[in-house]
Amino acid sequence: MSNGVRIEKDSLGTLAVPNSALWGIHTERALLNFPISGIQLGTHRHLVRALACVKKAAALTNSRLGLIPADIGQAIASACDTVASGGVDHAFPIDVVQGGAGTSTNMNANEVIANLALELLGHARGSYEVVDPIGHVNKCQSTNDVYPTAVRLALVFAVEELLDRLGLLSASFAERGQAFADIPKVGRTQLQDAVPMTLGQEFTAFSVTLDEDHRRLGEAAGLLKECSLGATAIGTGITADPLYVKRVIDTLSDVTGVRLVRARDFIEATWDTGAFMTFSGTLKRTAIKLSKICSDLRLLSSGPQTGLAEIRLPPRQAGSSIMPGKVNPVIPEVINQIAFFVAGADLTVTMAADNGQLQLNAFEPAIAHALLQSVSWLTNGCDVLRELCVTGVEANEALLRSRARASTGQATALLPFVGYTVAAGLAHRALVSGRSVLEIAVNEGLLLPAEAEALMGPTSRMFSGEPACQ
Amino acid sequence: MSNGVRIEKDSLGTLAVPNSALWGIHTERALLNFPISGIQLGTHRHLVRALACVKKAAALTNSRLGLIPADIGQAIASACDTVASGGVDHAFPIDVVQGGAGTSTNMNANEVIANLALELLGHARGSYEVVDPIGHVNKCQSTNDVYPTAVRLALVFAVEELLDRLGLLSASFAERGQAFADIPKVGRTQLQDAVPMTLGQEFTAFSVTLDEDHRRLGEAAGLLKECSLGATAIGTGITADPLYVKRVIDTLSDVTGVRLVRARDFIEATWDTGAFMTFSGTLKRTAIKLSKICSDLRLLSSGPQTGLAEIRLPPRQAGSSIMPGKVNPVIPEVINQIAFFVAGADLTVTMAADNGQLQLNAFEPAIAHALLQSVSWLTNGCDVLRELCVTGVEANEALLRSRARASTGQATALLPFVGYTVAAGLAHRALVSGRSVLEIAVNEGLLLPAEAEALMGPTSRMFSGEPACQ
Amino acid sequence: MSNGVRIEKDSLGTLAVPNSALWGIHTERALLNFPISGIQLGTHRHLVRALACVKKAAALTNSRLGLIPADIGQAIASACDTVASGGVDHAFPIDVVQGGAGTSTNMNANEVIANLALELLGHARGSYEVVDPIGHVNKCQSTNDVYPTAVRLALVFAVEELLDRLGLLSASFAERGQAFADIPKVGRTQLQDAVPMTLGQEFTAFSVTLDEDHRRLGEAAGLLKECSLGATAIGTGITADPLYVKRVIDTLSDVTGVRLVRARDFIEATWDTGAFMTFSGTLKRTAIKLSKICSDLRLLSSGPQTGLAEIRLPPRQAGSSIMPGKVNPVIPEVINQIAFFVAGADLTVTMAADNGQLQLNAFEPAIAHALLQSVSWLTNGCDVLRELCVTGVEANEALLRSRARASTGQATALLPFVGYTVAAGLAHRALVSGRSVLEIAVNEGLLLPAEAEALMGPTSRMFSGEPACQ
Amino acid sequence: MSNGVRIEKDSLGTLAVPNSALWGIHTERALLNFPISGIQLGTHRHLVRALACVKKAAALTNSRLGLIPADIGQAIASACDTVASGGVDHAFPIDVVQGGAGTSTNMNANEVIANLALELLGHARGSYEVVDPIGHVNKCQSTNDVYPTAVRLALVFAVEELLDRLGLLSASFAERGQAFADIPKVGRTQLQDAVPMTLGQEFTAFSVTLDEDHRRLGEAAGLLKECSLGATAIGTGITADPLYVKRVIDTLSDVTGVRLVRARDFIEATWDTGAFMTFSGTLKRTAIKLSKICSDLRLLSSGPQTGLAEIRLPPRQAGSSIMPGKVNPVIPEVINQIAFFVAGADLTVTMAADNGQLQLNAFEPAIAHALLQSVSWLTNGCDVLRELCVTGVEANEALLRSRARASTGQATALLPFVGYTVAAGLAHRALVSGRSVLEIAVNEGLLLPAEAEALMGPTSRMFSGEPACQ
Repeated sequence: MSNGVRIEKDSLGTLAVPNSALWGIHTERALLNFPISGIQLGTHRHLVRALACVKKAAALTNSRLGLIPADIGQAIASACDTVASGGVDHAFPIDVVQGGAGTSTNMNANEVIANLALELLGHARGSYEVVDPIGHVNKCQSTNDVYPTAVRLALVFAVEELLDRLGLLSASFAERGQAFADIPKVGRTQLQDAVPMTLGQEFTAFSVTLDEDHRRLGEAAGLLKECSLGATAIGTGITADPLYVKRVIDTLSDVTGVRLVRARDFIEATWDTGAFMTFSGTLKRTAIKLSKICSDLRLLSSGPQTGLAEIRLPPRQAGSSIMPGKVNPVIPEVINQIAFFVAGADLTVTMAADNGQLQLNAFEPAIAHALLQSVSWLTNGCDVLRELCVTGVEANEALLRSRARASTGQATALLPFVGYTVAAGLAHRALVSGRSVLEIAVNEGLLLPAEAEALMGPTSRMFSGEPACQ
Repeated sequence: MSNGVRIEKDSLGTLAVPNSALWGIHTERALLNFPISGIQLGTHRHLVRALACVKKAAALTNSRLGLIPADIGQAIASACDTVASGGVDHAFPIDVVQGGAGTSTNMNANEVIANLALELLGHARGSYEVVDPIGHVNKCQSTNDVYPTAVRLALVFAVEELLDRLGLLSASFAERGQAFADIPKVGRTQLQDAVPMTLGQEFTAFSVTLDEDHRRLGEAAGLLKECSLGATAIGTGITADPLYVKRVIDTLSDVTGVRLVRARDFIEATWDTGAFMTFSGTLKRTAIKLSKICSDLRLLSSGPQTGLAEIRLPPRQAGSSIMPGKVNPVIPEVINQIAFFVAGADLTVTMAADNGQLQLNAFEPAIAHALLQSVSWLTNGCDVLRELCVTGVEANEALLRSRARASTGQATALLPFVGYTVAAGLAHRALVSGRSVLEIAVNEGLLLPAEAEALMGPTSRMFSGEPACQ
Repeated sequence: MSNGVRIEKDSLGTLAVPNSALWGIHTERALLNFPISGIQLGTHRHLVRALACVKKAAALTNSRLGLIPADIGQAIASACDTVASGGVDHAFPIDVVQGGAGTSTNMNANEVIANLALELLGHARGSYEVVDPIGHVNKCQSTNDVYPTAVRLALVFAVEELLDRLGLLSASFAERGQAFADIPKVGRTQLQDAVPMTLGQEFTAFSVTLDEDHRRLGEAAGLLKECSLGATAIGTGITADPLYVKRVIDTLSDVTGVRLVRARDFIEATWDTGAFMTFSGTLKRTAIKLSKICSDLRLLSSGPQTGLAEIRLPPRQAGSSIMPGKVNPVIPEVINQIAFFVAGADLTVTMAADNGQLQLNAFEPAIAHALLQSVSWLTNGCDVLRELCVTGVEANEALLRSRARASTGQATALLPFVGYTVAAGLAHRALVSGRSVLEIAVNEGLLLPAEAEALMGPTSRMFSGEPACQ
Repeated sequence: MSNGVRIEKDSLGTLAVPNSALWGIHTERALLNFPISGIQLGTHRHLVRALACVKKAAALTNSRLGLIPADIGQAIASACDTVASGGVDHAFPIDVVQGGAGTSTNMNANEVIANLALELLGHARGSYEVVDPIGHVNKCQSTNDVYPTAVRLALVFAVEELLDRLGLLSASFAERGQAFADIPKVGRTQLQDAVPMTLGQEFTAFSVTLDEDHRRLGEAAGLLKECSLGATAIGTGITADPLYVKRVIDTLSDVTGVRLVRARDFIEATWDTGAFMTFSGTLKRTAIKLSKICSDLRLLSSGPQTGLAEIRLPPRQAGSSIMPGKVNPVIPEVINQIAFFVAGADLTVTMAADNGQLQLNAFEPAIAHALLQSVSWLTNGCDVLRELCVTGVEANEALLRSRARASTGQATALLPFVGYTVAAGLAHRALVSGRSVLEIAVNEGLLLPAEAEALMGPTSRMFSGEPACQ
């Protein structure tokens, strides 16, 4: 304990740990073994919290069953509360990119919690003969059930935030959809002018599609609530007391307020990564949808002189040092890029899942980091997109109306009345003359002025979206 | 009509079509435009059937509403039955890799059905003034609602087969799990020897995990049953009779026996590819799971002299021209590769989805081909894996038993009885001496012989998997 | 030999082979083992040719060294010529998706060549005591050196076609670049109007970028010319005569006209897939570049009324059954989709490469199919893009000129003359008034009319691209 | 300047900037706009250095041409040196995930350098009338040429480190290859026992393959040395003095010691991402190769009782809290995971490249972060793999020798002597009897004892690898 360090011991030997550190020898080894990304475990707030919840549930269960002394159980539970609250995230310094299937992460938690408990009990850090990271904090557990359970729980915590922000984002698109409900425009397919619709329909659809993803994400998160705590090393529950196994998941539900269920088959659950893949695929779906929407926002706001110029995004950045007045769609652009990262992360998850072998997938740390990062970036992206872009979108209403009036796409609306050949002729004459299809049709006596007016009105079937049929 | 061709006409001009062809000018142009993959649309049996079903539902609805003459409606419906039955798949020669957002596919169907209907009515092919591919067969429709609906329906048809075969495959693993229920073995984590389990548990877990994917695939397919038929060009239902829109999806449900529902928002549904992404992600999940299982089968059957050698796969191919007696795990190997293709297809789907713009995703043909191919290959893969591999897997029982007996992993089972330090000592002495942990423990008086025997028995908690707790 | 079949034998037993078949028992087993994709090996023309070349080189080398009788060597070489010429592609019916690391493909070649040689020598098919698929055709070889060598060679053959078509495509862009050299337009960054350039510069850049990829593909193909023929099973050359090993690659160079070199380390070369990954990555690069260009073509041709409308693509397909006159960019769209498939194939290759184990990568058949398909589709795509699209692109010159004249981006060109603040004011007044920046600048006496004229002229530094600096 | 802030101004308005900040208003806006990943730009050391180099080269060139005053040019150059040295990385706080095509990054550099220069000249931060971030630091530049140039340069800096560590790693494998040169073992294909080789050959091959990737990475990095500095906004060099354009790249070469060349076509170079894709693909190739090697190391060290157990990796972590004595291959595991992240990053780069539009790719920030992260993690991974694993690998020599002696794969070596049928018989009898093939062959008089001995000797053709042919 001299020189500001204490000497700790494990099955490989001894190592000096700074006295100031809440962690112990296993964490110290991990710091030496995995200097890869520089991203510390503690930055994954939800994972640290989830680890603390799992350890608390185990301690409470062990304590109630008399498997550990009551005072130690109580101290561990209190230590877990401290960790869960975020007060000691700095004590989780190990790299998020790590080998060992999460062993370092589990041991970092065990060690920090043990030392916090020791302090609560009035002992010095490292007095593991009193509170043992393995014998007490990890009692009835293995990395192989603790780690996957904690990662799942962390994602459940994280996705709650994402769902909240995605809902707000959807609402902001719905609000714009309402605001633009009466503004006609020319719809486009394959980037070519098609038929009339309203700008409101376009923005409402963005809301509708995000609502669907909200449901899909909720369902995918539901699969993560199935966990294997109690399975220990390979799913046989070896070393775990049967009563502990029976009770610990319910206790974890109580601790977290998340209704967790036990995996159907612990052997399978110990190596399976299916729920992670489904979750990852769903995140990718949402990300790609946001990317598509943002590409649309960029297209629709292109210009101002030579683009589509249908909407204006709120300016957030002087666009150029050498092009006076240029403003770029920087917020949609950052969302597109988040999507590219989320798609990349899905590939990381896929390869990690594919490389699982026999009774365990050793690559869950990669899965955990990839998914936690994706959820976090998407959550932040939803906020940024809503606050800094969507709520401030404005329509170029005059331009949209004039284009809708001039559009040869009106000819399609006349198909049921005049047939394909006559409609095609009208479209052609309109394009050549610059006059509108409806105007020509009225002039040529094919339509009464009132009929033409009705066709362009806001309640016209031309914009019905939801075709009016009883 | 001389020289064995007829001259057909569209808005771009005229083109000669072979008299022998059931298709018309749009299909002929597609043949010229898209000589890419050489894979003909007709090889996607499910898609051709789905197109026929959509066209039949439209014809019946149009006919009942008096939008097309009854006799023509009847002829079209009969023609659709012919197409659905698979009798004229050769009449769908266009390339599966095509531009135009499915327009060529829709027109190929329209033309073939029109010409079949013409023949039924006693007219020559190409007499479109009697039965018009667009005016009659495509009545109240657009490629933009027909094509996505048909692709979804095709996938629903296809996935039924896959679910069937996946179920059989799962059952074959379950059967092997039962057969191997009493064979102890050493479980492995991170490829290192861990603790005891049974070979039956290992194979049962393969069944359990595939059952989960069976459910996930069923759910993902459910999303595909939401369709936009009636939305026409961009979702506003332009050119479609409101009563047609109201009824056509129910008619399609009747025609197919698949309970389809209408998309909540037709504008959104016309460009959205979310359900395809979820389906693709779920296929990838299943594929990766099969890949992991097959990698395990290859690992477990490695040897025969220097590998794990725990199981024997049925020989299916002389393994080598120069290594006498070599037999390779060729069936699992082909499944691994199917998984790599399915993962690749998921990326294709992702990029296609990401590149959608405004009111339509022009890249659905790529999505359709990628997904239909994946489902087909996975379906075939499940059959091959079951029939040619899983049902014939045999255990190397003697070796497994002797390894389980010698395993130092037994020390873990003694942890609750003797503590970590004593258990570690036992493990160490066992590894050095070649004797079993339990034998040493009995010798040293730490365990009664009967206790040791009980620990190794088939009902021991060492293999409990589902920990015995009431 | 009754009932139209002959009974053949291998180490697993016997099997009936149709007398009409040029193949034998190993091929027949492969047909039973791998009913996956329905895509026959014979559709990979370049691979069948490459296999024939390898077998011919081996036969010639063996024959010259007296390792096989001269007449048999000669018959085998002649048979190889038949196979290489494409005459018997139908005799390669096995599935491209196969386990066994290419063993089935190698044996299919061995058997077809043996039977063709037998016929040349006046013997019945199946008389393997005279010409033995293994003992003679496969002499001194293993699947593990034959298959990778053949796949590499097939890709070298295939890429020659691709390079040819890519060159032609680049030339067509260059030609359009020349044609559009004097047409000014407004360049765009981040979809927002930026500064002036010419349409010619835009199209020339497409040519320049494809030229770069032409070089990169050539370099990547160069790596494929390093091969391991002679390495046999695992790279030690076991069973191969040292003189054969010394000579066979040179003979293969002579047979093919492709200058092949020997891998530096046969052990490494037997499992390494690095050159495939580099080739795949380069194909993906080219595909993505084509995709970007085609997305640009679709953007630039968007409209006609509400899009950018800067260019017109030749119409290739009536765009819509219900939107009269609509023409869609179907050719660029198919190229985008090819790119999505090539990117997917790259992922397939990546996962196949990652899953290689120890002395061999068992998943090269997946790599082979993925890469051969990608090259083929890209080759076809280049032709289609050039012939059906690029050569017919027309400029909307009047519109482009008028937009360039009105562009506030001219203000940037005035920066060096008037400074940022004045330039920004000019841009603002131009946007509000609808007059051009240069016109206002002249009016305000900031510029002489001749200076303004010079700034807009074709030799102006505003379009210099290659800044004029001596 | 009250309250510890100064008020800065841009074209969008004003904003308070902390007086303590070296950055200005554009950076401050970026902090508000992009709170996405929490990863600060300053963590990309190489990119900050590269930006400083570019700015210094521009300042020197501008100064020498009299485009900016000499004293200001000198102050800017000195400020750039400070930035390049790493002293103010904390002044680059903006998020690495950002919209705006790098504008925020460029402006962060401009602002920090301007303020550092101001301090050098004795002025207060924010006195931009003296040294202007745009007018002086960004003189003759645009984000669109500065940013891509800096990213390329950063990658060139970064890859130098990677090449260094990859070389050391390769050398460590070569050293182990030498140490194991005389240890025979059974090679495996498709995980099945094949023919003899040496452990030395296996490890040497790891070195050989990494040497190849060293060359490939060097070539790919070469492409990054082609840059577009001087192209300004879209490649026409607008606002840049022709003499500046002519000289600035050479100056940058002098400043960095990296021989940079000018892109052939500035228009193309401004939007092209080909070199990034090639570089990314090459990183992926290297990563996958490392992954394959590490999977091999894990396979070969599997056991100790029931695995291949051919080698022992140095223990780096107590493997389990509940399995006494278990040691896991944690170092290879972390490398596998780095590879999965690098593959994911390649997909991010691919999608970013695909989404480029017209004259610029707005998604280069995603490309930059993805690639810089991949290079950094791979560099760290090489160090960890070498230091903590490869150098300490030990062979299980006794086991390997005994297995090689017993291997039926010896029968293959006898093929040229005894033919396939006799060899197969020997293999079969060896497998059944447990005696070695050579022993039986000698017993049966097929081989002299000396011949058998020679076949197993270290110079035997059985292990020749490089077949001995003069």
